[in-house]
Amino acid sequence: MDRSVIRILGVDPGLRNTGWGLIEAFGSRLSFLACGSIRTDAAASLAGRLASIHSALTALVDDNGPDEAAVEETFVNRDPQSTLKLGQARGVALAALALKDLPVSEYAANLIKKTVVGVGHAEKGQVAMMVKMLLPASDASAPDAADALAVAICHAQHRQARARGAR
Amino acid sequence: MDRSVIRILGVDPGLRNTGWGLIEAFGSRLSFLACGSIRTDAAASLAGRLASIHSALTALVDDNGPDEAAVEETFVNRDPQSTLKLGQARGVALAALALKDLPVSEYAANLIKKTVVGVGHAEKGQVAMMVKMLLPASDASAPDAADALAVAICHAQHRQARARGAR
Repeated sequence: MDRSVIRILGVDPGLRNTGWGLIEAFGSRLSFLACGSIRTDAAASLAGRLASIHSALTALVDDNGPDEAAVEETFVNRDPQSTLKLGQARGVALAALALKDLPVSEYAANLIKKTVVGVGHAEKGQVAMMVKMLLPASDASAPDAADALAVAICHAQHRQARARGAR
Repeated sequence: MDRSVIRILGVDPGLRNTGWGLIEAFGSRLSFLACGSIRTDAAASLAGRLASIHSALTALVDDNGPDEAAVEETFVNRDPQSTLKLGQARGVALAALALKDLPVSEYAANLIKKTVVGVGHAEKGQVAMMVKMLLPASDASAPDAADALAVAICHAQHRQARARGAR
């Protein structure tokens, strides 16, 4: 079992709000470090908004030095314009993290909910509540910051199984 | 009328192949500079592939110093997984260009075809043929490089009208 402290950055990408959450995992013990939301200016150009997501994530990595990153997989079964917007923000997030040489894992929304709440069809409010229970020090006021912490928690639970599987 | 020489980078984003084409416009006179295709390794991770598109476009801008960029708008009326993949690549392209402080214009596929071929429902082969006629020196062997040159030509035709409209 891995007994070193791993710092994990979870990201929940979106064009308007990109949630992020930073935790440390020491074996199965988790601790909260920080979380927040990158908001883009709806009046700015699309390219400008995407560039600001890239810059903000790059600065977050530079300032906090995570070891690994985890990003929520995009759910595509809805209006194609929403899928496209989310895809654009998500692409920028994945590229920005990989350009910082972070290993980036992706998790489906259902697996994140199942890991954090126990059921795959949990409501958003249940996820936020469980995040607060698992990380009592967390202060995620924005829902996308809580979602980002949930992605980070999911990665903390699954990363060792993934690493074993990859060997 | 704008009588200065403007260097335009056209980009046709895609996860597998991102076409690019560089032209110069002097009034209504166009000349070909270069074109090509950024290919990503299908065996690499999604985040790694997106990062390589970002790096390649950044290097292209650094090496060639375009004044303006133009990107094809993504067509969403198809399989949502394709929309998502294209959206991710497109988001990375837009962000990479904007991070280089380039003004980025977006054009719908129909307008590009209408501008280059004369009709909005032109076939891919017709676009490539007209690109070759308008830019005789061009050597776009890859279809996505020809499409990227078509985006650049479209921007050369429409940029002054857009600039006037913006004032």
